Amino acid sequence: MAYFQSKPNSGRHFLQIPGPSNVPDRILRAMDHPTMDHRGPDFGKLGAQVLEKAKAIFKTKSHVIIYPASGTGAWEAALVNTLSPGDRVVMCETGWFAHLWNEMAERLGIVADFVKTDWRRGADVEAIERKLREDKSHAIKAVCVVHNETSTGATSRIAEVRAAIDAAKHPALLLVDTISGLGSMDYRHDEWGVDVTVSGSQKGLMLPPGLSFNAISAKAIEASKSARLTRSFWDWKPMLAANATGYFPYTPATNMLYALDTACDMLLEEGLDNVFARHDRMAEATRRAVRHWGLEVQCQDPRHYSSVLTAVRLPEGHSANALRATILEKFNMSLGNGLGQLNDRVFRIGHLGDISPLQLVGALGGVEMGLRAAGVPHQAGGVQVAMDYLGGNA
Amino acid sequence: MAYFQSKPNSGRHFLQIPGPSNVPDRILRAMDHPTMDHRGPDFGKLGAQVLEKAKAIFKTKSHVIIYPASGTGAWEAALVNTLSPGDRVVMCETGWFAHLWNEMAERLGIVADFVKTDWRRGADVEAIERKLREDKSHAIKAVCVVHNETSTGATSRIAEVRAAIDAAKHPALLLVDTISGLGSMDYRHDEWGVDVTVSGSQKGLMLPPGLSFNAISAKAIEASKSARLTRSFWDWKPMLAANATGYFPYTPATNMLYALDTACDMLLEEGLDNVFARHDRMAEATRRAVRHWGLEVQCQDPRHYSSVLTAVRLPEGHSANALRATILEKFNMSLGNGLGQLNDRVFRIGHLGDISPLQLVGALGGVEMGLRAAGVPHQAGGVQVAMDYLGGNA
Amino acid sequence: MAYFQSKPNSGRHFLQIPGPSNVPDRILRAMDHPTMDHRGPDFGKLGAQVLEKAKAIFKTKSHVIIYPASGTGAWEAALVNTLSPGDRVVMCETGWFAHLWNEMAERLGIVADFVKTDWRRGADVEAIERKLREDKSHAIKAVCVVHNETSTGATSRIAEVRAAIDAAKHPALLLVDTISGLGSMDYRHDEWGVDVTVSGSQKGLMLPPGLSFNAISAKAIEASKSARLTRSFWDWKPMLAANATGYFPYTPATNMLYALDTACDMLLEEGLDNVFARHDRMAEATRRAVRHWGLEVQCQDPRHYSSVLTAVRLPEGHSANALRATILEKFNMSLGNGLGQLNDRVFRIGHLGDISPLQLVGALGGVEMGLRAAGVPHQAGGVQVAMDYLGGNA
Amino acid sequence: MAYFQSKPNSGRHFLQIPGPSNVPDRILRAMDHPTMDHRGPDFGKLGAQVLEKAKAIFKTKSHVIIYPASGTGAWEAALVNTLSPGDRVVMCETGWFAHLWNEMAERLGIVADFVKTDWRRGADVEAIERKLREDKSHAIKAVCVVHNETSTGATSRIAEVRAAIDAAKHPALLLVDTISGLGSMDYRHDEWGVDVTVSGSQKGLMLPPGLSFNAISAKAIEASKSARLTRSFWDWKPMLAANATGYFPYTPATNMLYALDTACDMLLEEGLDNVFARHDRMAEATRRAVRHWGLEVQCQDPRHYSSVLTAVRLPEGHSANALRATILEKFNMSLGNGLGQLNDRVFRIGHLGDISPLQLVGALGGVEMGLRAAGVPHQAGGVQVAMDYLGGNA
Repeated sequence: MAYFQSKPNSGRHFLQIPGPSNVPDRILRAMDHPTMDHRGPDFGKLGAQVLEKAKAIFKTKSHVIIYPASGTGAWEAALVNTLSPGDRVVMCETGWFAHLWNEMAERLGIVADFVKTDWRRGADVEAIERKLREDKSHAIKAVCVVHNETSTGATSRIAEVRAAIDAAKHPALLLVDTISGLGSMDYRHDEWGVDVTVSGSQKGLMLPPGLSFNAISAKAIEASKSARLTRSFWDWKPMLAANATGYFPYTPATNMLYALDTACDMLLEEGLDNVFARHDRMAEATRRAVRHWGLEVQCQDPRHYSSVLTAVRLPEGHSANALRATILEKFNMSLGNGLGQLNDRVFRIGHLGDISPLQLVGALGGVEMGLRAAGVPHQAGGVQVAMDYLGGNA
Repeated sequence: MAYFQSKPNSGRHFLQIPGPSNVPDRILRAMDHPTMDHRGPDFGKLGAQVLEKAKAIFKTKSHVIIYPASGTGAWEAALVNTLSPGDRVVMCETGWFAHLWNEMAERLGIVADFVKTDWRRGADVEAIERKLREDKSHAIKAVCVVHNETSTGATSRIAEVRAAIDAAKHPALLLVDTISGLGSMDYRHDEWGVDVTVSGSQKGLMLPPGLSFNAISAKAIEASKSARLTRSFWDWKPMLAANATGYFPYTPATNMLYALDTACDMLLEEGLDNVFARHDRMAEATRRAVRHWGLEVQCQDPRHYSSVLTAVRLPEGHSANALRATILEKFNMSLGNGLGQLNDRVFRIGHLGDISPLQLVGALGGVEMGLRAAGVPHQAGGVQVAMDYLGGNA
Repeated sequence: MAYFQSKPNSGRHFLQIPGPSNVPDRILRAMDHPTMDHRGPDFGKLGAQVLEKAKAIFKTKSHVIIYPASGTGAWEAALVNTLSPGDRVVMCETGWFAHLWNEMAERLGIVADFVKTDWRRGADVEAIERKLREDKSHAIKAVCVVHNETSTGATSRIAEVRAAIDAAKHPALLLVDTISGLGSMDYRHDEWGVDVTVSGSQKGLMLPPGLSFNAISAKAIEASKSARLTRSFWDWKPMLAANATGYFPYTPATNMLYALDTACDMLLEEGLDNVFARHDRMAEATRRAVRHWGLEVQCQDPRHYSSVLTAVRLPEGHSANALRATILEKFNMSLGNGLGQLNDRVFRIGHLGDISPLQLVGALGGVEMGLRAAGVPHQAGGVQVAMDYLGGNA
Repeated sequence: MAYFQSKPNSGRHFLQIPGPSNVPDRILRAMDHPTMDHRGPDFGKLGAQVLEKAKAIFKTKSHVIIYPASGTGAWEAALVNTLSPGDRVVMCETGWFAHLWNEMAERLGIVADFVKTDWRRGADVEAIERKLREDKSHAIKAVCVVHNETSTGATSRIAEVRAAIDAAKHPALLLVDTISGLGSMDYRHDEWGVDVTVSGSQKGLMLPPGLSFNAISAKAIEASKSARLTRSFWDWKPMLAANATGYFPYTPATNMLYALDTACDMLLEEGLDNVFARHDRMAEATRRAVRHWGLEVQCQDPRHYSSVLTAVRLPEGHSANALRATILEKFNMSLGNGLGQLNDRVFRIGHLGDISPLQLVGALGGVEMGLRAAGVPHQAGGVQVAMDYLGGNA
C-alpha cells in the first residue's frame, strides 16, 4: 500500500484542514533517520538541544515537557498535574475543543464552571473576571482557556484573560490550550503569566501528530506538589528530573524529536515574527475571499479572528459536508469539517504551517470551483480578491 | 544537525539495544509519507486495515487498541481501564520493568502483592497460584505479568500463568506486558486467555517509539464498565466506538500507522513462525558465544531464555558501563545498559526485529573485540562458536 | 546544506519550469531505496520489468534503450547509432532545442539541411516533404524532428511528418525528440512509424534528470549495422544483448530505475489517455489566462499548441527575466527562461507531470501577482478565467 | 514493488560487491530532495560548491568535469577529448576493466599497444617505460592505466607510472581510471601529474551509479583543442564554460549532485587520510581471513594489494558462482563475481565506502559460513583472525 490520499487529478494532495498541517519535506526527511539509542550520549545532546529550542517557541524560560503522545494527552497532563478530585475550575466554551476539554475535566472528577459563548468568538473575559471576583473563598483552582479554537476559528486573547485574573486578585492557575495556535500566532507563555500551556505537534509546528507539550510555570510546578489526581505517565516530576540531563523517564518518540528539532530550526530561521505575519496575511486573504463569495465567517469578532484557520458558514439549506466531499473528489483537497453543533453547517480552511501565498491561492481556487460544482450560491471572484491583497503585500 | 549517531569507524551504527530496534528501511519509507486527513475517507480504510492486521500479530479475534503514545502509557491504560482505587492485584517482580509497572500501579492507588524473584528467571507461577488459592474472597482483581522482561532477558511462560489461574479457579483478570516480546516470540492473546496485552511499537514491530497497544478480551471490556480509576485519554470506550469505522476519537499518530501497517505486512509476509524461529536462532547463537567467552547469562532458567535479548553478567570488578562505552566509541555499536540493581553489572545484547545472522555476527564480533579492548577476561572464539551454530542452521 | 530552494514565503517551492518537473513523493521514495547488486538475480527481474513498462509508455512493441545519462546523450545516441560521417539529414528548426540538436549533428560530422521556422509553430511538414521529394537519389538518411519544442511550446505533428515521408516514398529514417513530450502528450512510436524516439526522465516521466531513452524500430536497428559514426557508450548493440535478460552492459543508474518503474506504474494506473487529457486541460486553462492578461502565446498555430508548457511573450520594453526574478523572490516560484533568440522576450510556464488544477491555479496566481509586482501591463482576472475553465471541466 | 533485495533471513542486505557500494542513509536522504531549477540562482551556488569540493577529493587545483552519466561514459570522455582517430596509446591489461577500456579505445578508432599482465598484479611499469623509450618519434599520445582494477583487486602505482614517463622523457598524456579507487585509496591528480582522471560515483564516493568524472590537467585541455575524435555530449569545452558560473551546458543530474555534495562533506569531515586508513584496515583484515581459510588472494604482489576489494580464488573444482549463490540465498549477502577469464574462478569481497569493522566482521562471517555451506574446503577461524587484527587496531 502506498500511503497517499486518492488523487483523481494527480498532483500533490492539498491538505487544507486546520491540522494536521502539511509536513514540510525537510521535516519528513528529519523524521525518517534511523532511531538512535535513547540512553546513549548522542541522545542526551539531542534531548537537551530540542528542549531548549522548544522553550524559544513557547517564549518561556521555565520548562517545556514533551510527551510522546498526541495533543489530547497534554490536556489531561495539564489537569492531572495541577488539580485534585473535586477541584473547581472555570472553563470557557469557545467551541468543540473547549467542550471536549470540559468533558475530560468532568471525567477526571473536576468540577467545571463552564462559561458559554455562541461559538462565534473567543473566551468571554468579562464573565471570567466576574466569576473570579465572586469567588471570594478562592475555591476556583484554575481558569482553562482555549487560545485558538480550532472548531470555530476564534482566538481568545490570553493577555486579557491574564489581566482579568490579576484584576480579580485571584490566585487561580491559568491553563491555556494552544494546540493549534503555537507556531502560527503570537504566544507568550511567560509574559502572559500562563501556568500551563498545552500544545501539540501537528499544527504550527508542522510535524505529524504524535508529540504534545506542557509548558509549565514555577507556580504550576508548585501546585503539582499537592495535586492529588492520579497520574503516572503524565507526571511532570520524573520528566523534569530526567530532562535536566537531556533524557526522558521512559522511551521518548525519538524520530519525532528529530522532526521537532528541525521544525524549531525552520521557525527560528524564518523568525517567529515573520511566521506570524505570514499567517496573518494568509488569514486576511482568506477572509476577503470568503466575504467576496458572500459567505459568512464563523467568527464574528474581528479581534478574535484566527490566523490559523477560517471556518466558513454555508447558507441555510446547503450541506458543508457535501461541499467538502465534492472538493475532495474533484479537486483533491481536504478541508476541515464542522464539529459538534457546527457539523454540516461550516467547513474549515486551514491556512497554517508550511503554507505560501501560491498554495493558498490554489486552495482558495479549489474552494471557489467547489462552491460552483456543488451548487452553493456565491459571487465568483474571491480568489481574485485574495490575490489583490496577497500581491499587494508580497 | 544530521540525526545520526557518532561513527568513528564510519558505516551504519549497530543499534543492538533491546529496543528501540533497528527500523528497517521499508518502514522508515512508509513513515515519511505526507500526513493525511485523519477524518477523510482514505484514512478510514487505512485505520480499518491496520486494526485488522494488528489483531493477527496479537493472535486475537477481539480488539486491539492503538494509542498514539509510547509503551509506558499502555501500561497505564491496562490498569486504569480495568481497576478501581484500592483494588488488589498480584504482580511479579521479574526485573526492572516489572518493578516500574508495580510502582505505577501503586501511584494509581492500586494495592499490589508483589511476588519477588531474583531477577534471573521469569514469573514464579507457583507463587502466583498459591496467592490466588489463598484468596478465597476473590479480592484479587488481576494478575500482572511481564512476558519478556527486557531488563534481564527472562521470559515468563504465560500459558502456565493462565493454567495456574484456572487451577485456582480464580476470576482475576490476566494482564500481560509483552512490550518487548510481541513480534519476536510466540504470543497468543486469545489462546492463553489474556485479558489485556500491553505492547509497544519499538521492539519486535520494528517501528520507532510512539505507538502502544492494548489487546483486550471481552472480559476486560466487561470489567472496564465498572472500573473506577479516572481515565480519559486511555479510555477504551471511545476508542472502540470510533475504531468500529476505522477512525480514532482524537488525532491518531497517522505516520506511525503507515509504519505499523507496513510492519505488519513484513511480519506476515515472512510468516510469524519463521520470525520466531529466526529470533530463537539469534538468541541461541548469542548465548553460545557468551558461554564460550566464559561469561554468565543473567537468565538462569533455560525454559525462560528470551529470544529478544541476552543480558550478560560481567565478572566481579569489571564495569559493564565502561565496556559499553568502549564498544560505542571504538566499534560504533550501542548495547543496552543494566537497569536498577543490575546497573553496571550486566550489559544487554538486543537481537530482535530486523536482524540477520550476518548482522548478529558483526554485533557479537563487536562485543568480543570490545571485551578485549576493555580488558575484560574472556576466552576468545565466541563469534566462531556462534557462527558454527548459525552456519549449521542456515 | 539542505537542498531546498530559498523560500521567502515558506511553503513548498513551485517548480513550474518545463522540466525538470516536480518529482512526486512516491517517486522520490522509490529512488531512495538502497542500491542493489546490478548483477544479482533481483536486478534481472527489475530490469526486465522496467524495460517492459517503458515500452508501454512509448507505445512500442520493439525496443527501448535506457541510458544512465541525461537527455542530451540520447540525442547523440540516436545519431551515432544510425548515421555515418557525412550523411545528410533534414532537421527542422522549431526552436532552441532543435537548434542544439542541429549543432550536435554538425559537430558529429553530419550534414544537416536545416528547415527554418519562425519559432512560433511546429515543424514545417510541407517543407520536409518537398525536400524529400527533391532528393531523388535518397541521399537524405534521416528526418529529425522535435516533437515538443520546449523552448517555444509548439508541438510538431509527428503523424503528419510520417505521412509526408511516405507520400514522398522516401526511405529516410524518422528520428524524433520527445524529451519533453513523452508521458504528457500522446505519442505513438510504432503507429507513427518512428525509427528512433529520443526521450528523457525529467519531464512527463516525473523523475529527476539522469535517465534517457531511445525507442528503436527494426529499421533503425538494421541501419545501425552499417552506421559508421564512432560509438561505444551509446552503442545499442551491447544494450540489446544484455537487456534480453534484464541486465545492462555497464553499470546502470539503479536507483533511477526504481524511480522509473514507479513512474510507469503511476502513469499506467492513471491511464495514459487520462494523463494526456489532464495535460490538455492544464494547457488550455493556462492559455486562457494568458490571453485574458492580454499577453501573447509564443506558439501561433493552435494545432501546434503544447500541452506541456506555454511560452508567453512580454510586451516590448519589458524584461521576461526581470519578471521571473520578481516571481522567484516574492512568490517562491521558478518559471522557465527564454532560450536563444527568445531570451528575456518570453517566459515559460511548465504545466506538466505531477500537476493538478489547484497547483495550476496557484501557479497562474503567482504569474498574475508577479505581472503586477513587476509592473508589466496586463488585465487582471486571468486566474479567474482559468478557474472558470477548470471548474467547468473538473 | 518494494525495491529491496530478497531477504530470507530478514535484516539489511549485505551489499559487499566492489561497487555500487552501500549508500549511507545520509546520502540517500540528500538525494531524495525535490529537484530544483537547474537554471535558477540556488542551483548556481550548489554547482559551484560541489565542483569545488570535488577538486578536494581528486586532489587537484585544476578542473573536475561532472557527467550526468555512469562511469563507462567517463572512459569515453577521457579518450574522445584528447585523441584523434588512429592515435597510438599504451594501455595495460591489468584485468577485465582494463580490457573493456581497451576494447572501447579500439572501437573509437584508437590504436592501442596493450601491455599484458597475468591479472594478478598492477600495471607493468617497466614495460610501459620500455615502450615509451622505444617510441623515439613520440607517436604514442597517451598512457592509459587503471588505478584500481576492480576485477582483480590489484592497484597500479600511478606515481611510478608518472616517474616512468618522465624517465623516458616522453610527452604522452597520462590517463588514469580510478573509478573504483577514488575516495577509498590515496589518489593525487596534480601531484602524480595525471592528465585525465576518470572516476564514478558508486564506489568510494558512496553514491548510487549515475555520475562520472574527468579531472583534467591544463595539458589535457590543451590536447583537447586539437583532438579530432567526434564528441558532443562528452565535450569538455562547453562544460568548462558553463561550470565557471556553477552551471552545466545541459541538464545535470540535480539530485545526484545533492548526493555528491553530501558525500564530499562526509569524506572531508572524516578526513581523507582517515578514510584511506580505514580502508587499509578493512583490506588487511580481509586478506588475513582469506589466508587463514587457506584460500588464495588473486593479487600476488603485496605492493599492489587493493584496499577496495579482495578477489579470492577458489580451489580447482569449486565454483565461485555456486558459492556466491549459496551465500546470497542463505545469508542475504551479495558478493562480486569473477569477470572475464576469472568467471567462476574468483569471488570478490567489496570492503569500500561506508563500511565499519563490525560490518566487515559480519561480511567475513557470511563468507566463512558460506564456504562451509557450499562445501568449499577451508580452515575455519578466518573471522577470528580478522577480529584479532581489527580489534588490535581499533
